[in-house]
Amino acid sequence: MKRIVLGIQYDGSPWKGWQTQPSGNTVQDRLEAALKRFTLTDNATTCAGRTDAGVHAIEQVVHFDTEIEREPFSWVRGTNAFLPPSIAVRWARELDTSNHAEFHARFSARSRTYHYLLYNHPVRSSLLSGKAGWTFRPVDLESMKQGAAFLLGEHDFSAFRAAECQARSPIKNMLEIRIERRSDLIVFTFTANAFLHHMVRNIVGALVYVGTGVQKPDWMAELLAGRNRSLAAPTFMPDGLYLARIDYDAKWGLPQEVPSCPWL
Amino acid sequence: MKRIVLGIQYDGSPWKGWQTQPSGNTVQDRLEAALKRFTLTDNATTCAGRTDAGVHAIEQVVHFDTEIEREPFSWVRGTNAFLPPSIAVRWARELDTSNHAEFHARFSARSRTYHYLLYNHPVRSSLLSGKAGWTFRPVDLESMKQGAAFLLGEHDFSAFRAAECQARSPIKNMLEIRIERRSDLIVFTFTANAFLHHMVRNIVGALVYVGTGVQKPDWMAELLAGRNRSLAAPTFMPDGLYLARIDYDAKWGLPQEVPSCPWL
Repeated sequence: MKRIVLGIQYDGSPWKGWQTQPSGNTVQDRLEAALKRFTLTDNATTCAGRTDAGVHAIEQVVHFDTEIEREPFSWVRGTNAFLPPSIAVRWARELDTSNHAEFHARFSARSRTYHYLLYNHPVRSSLLSGKAGWTFRPVDLESMKQGAAFLLGEHDFSAFRAAECQARSPIKNMLEIRIERRSDLIVFTFTANAFLHHMVRNIVGALVYVGTGVQKPDWMAELLAGRNRSLAAPTFMPDGLYLARIDYDAKWGLPQEVPSCPWL
Repeated sequence: MKRIVLGIQYDGSPWKGWQTQPSGNTVQDRLEAALKRFTLTDNATTCAGRTDAGVHAIEQVVHFDTEIEREPFSWVRGTNAFLPPSIAVRWARELDTSNHAEFHARFSARSRTYHYLLYNHPVRSSLLSGKAGWTFRPVDLESMKQGAAFLLGEHDFSAFRAAECQARSPIKNMLEIRIERRSDLIVFTFTANAFLHHMVRNIVGALVYVGTGVQKPDWMAELLAGRNRSLAAPTFMPDGLYLARIDYDAKWGLPQEVPSCPWL
C-alpha cells in the first residue's frame, strides 16, 4: 500500500463544497469519481481542510492509499483527464513506505492560510462574480488593521464560530493577518494553526464593519472577549474565500506551490 | 430623445457572444431585457465591438436612445438590479442634445484594445478556467515580440481573418502590441483602429507557434504577406480574450475606466 498525496486547485462556484454528498455535486465526489475512472478502483480521499459551498482552493492537499503504481505526473495528467475544468490536480507525490504511515493531510498540517478577496467599488464586478466579496462603501484599511491586531495569538474564537461547527475546541492560534489594497481589491490573508467553521468569513464581516466606520477597531477585542457569535457581524459571502496553503514540515518533501493569489 | 451611453463589463463564459439571438442567451439580449424591466420600454442597443461566445469585456461601450429621464447613476443601479451577476453596467452618461446626434458607440470609436491572457504552465489552471487560454509548452517572449513587430502599422490582415468575417476591408492599422509575463500568465495587449473577426485569437495562435519554436519570428511576416488564412495557426480558444477598451475623443466626456486587466 502506498500513500499518494495530491495538491488540488478548484473554483468552488459550481460545487457544494468539499465534502461528499448524496447529490455528488462536491469537489470530493468529482475527485473520487475521476480517480476511479483513472485507476478502476475506489479511492477514499482525506483532505487537509473542508471548504464550504462556493469556496475556492488555490492549494488543497489530499491523501489516499492505493496499490496502484504510477509516476507522479501520471497521477496528475491521468486524473485531470477525468475532472471538470473547475477542478485540477496540480501535483502528486508518492510517500515512501518508511514515512507514509505517518503523513496525514489533515493531522500533519501545521497551519492553514486563507485569502479573502473583497472588491471595494461603487459598482459590483461582473468579471469577479463568484470570485470576490463586494462592498460598495469605502473601506479604511488602517482601522481594519488595528482591529485585526486584537485577533493575533491564541484566543477562544467562539465569537466567530458557526453554530454547526464540529471542532473540539474554539481555541485557535492566529499566526498572521495581512490586509493589503491592490487597486479596487482588498486582499486579506489569515494564517492560523486551524480555523473554526465560517471563522474567516465571520472575521471579514466584522472587519468590514470596522473598515466602514460602523464599529471602532477595539470592537474586535470586545467581540473576541464576549465569545458570543450573535453579537458579531453577518457571515460574509463565500465568493471571495480561497484556501491558499496548507503548511507541512519540509521533511515530507511535498512540491507545494507559492501561495499566491491567482488574481494578483 | 436622449442618447444614453453605457460602459458594460461581462464575463463571457456563460453567453453566446454579444449579438442578439433567438435563444436569448447573449449579452445584448440580457442587457436589453434588463433595460426593458427598468424603463418599461424597448431599447435597441448598439455596441462598439461585437464579441464572440465566451469572450469577455472589461469595458464594452453601448448606446441607445430614450425619452426616459434618469440620473446617470440611476441607469447603473437600476439596470444592474435586473442583470445576472456575470454582466454589469459600470457607468452611464446622457449626452447633451447638441452632441448626441453625432456620437455613435461604433462609428465614433478611434481604436479598440484587447487583452489575451495565456496561462503558461505544465498543468491547466482550474481557477482560470474560462478566463485564460492555456499552453503547457514553455513559451519564449522575445521571439514572440520579434514576430509581433511585423504586424505593427497598416496591413492587409487577411491571413488572420475568419471566413465568416463581414468587415468591408481586411486593411487595419495595428497601433500597439505588448507582450508581458506576469508569473505564470502571459498578457498580450493589442490596439488597432479596428479588428477583423477572430483576428486577435488567430494572431495569438500564430505567436504561440513562434513562442514555442514551431516557427521562426519572421514567419509572421510571411503569413501577413501571404494573406491566406489557411496557412496560419489554429484559432486560439476564446477563454483568454478580453475587450479591454474602446478609445473615443475626450470631447464626449465619457467616464471611461483605466483599461487594466482584472486578474493582474
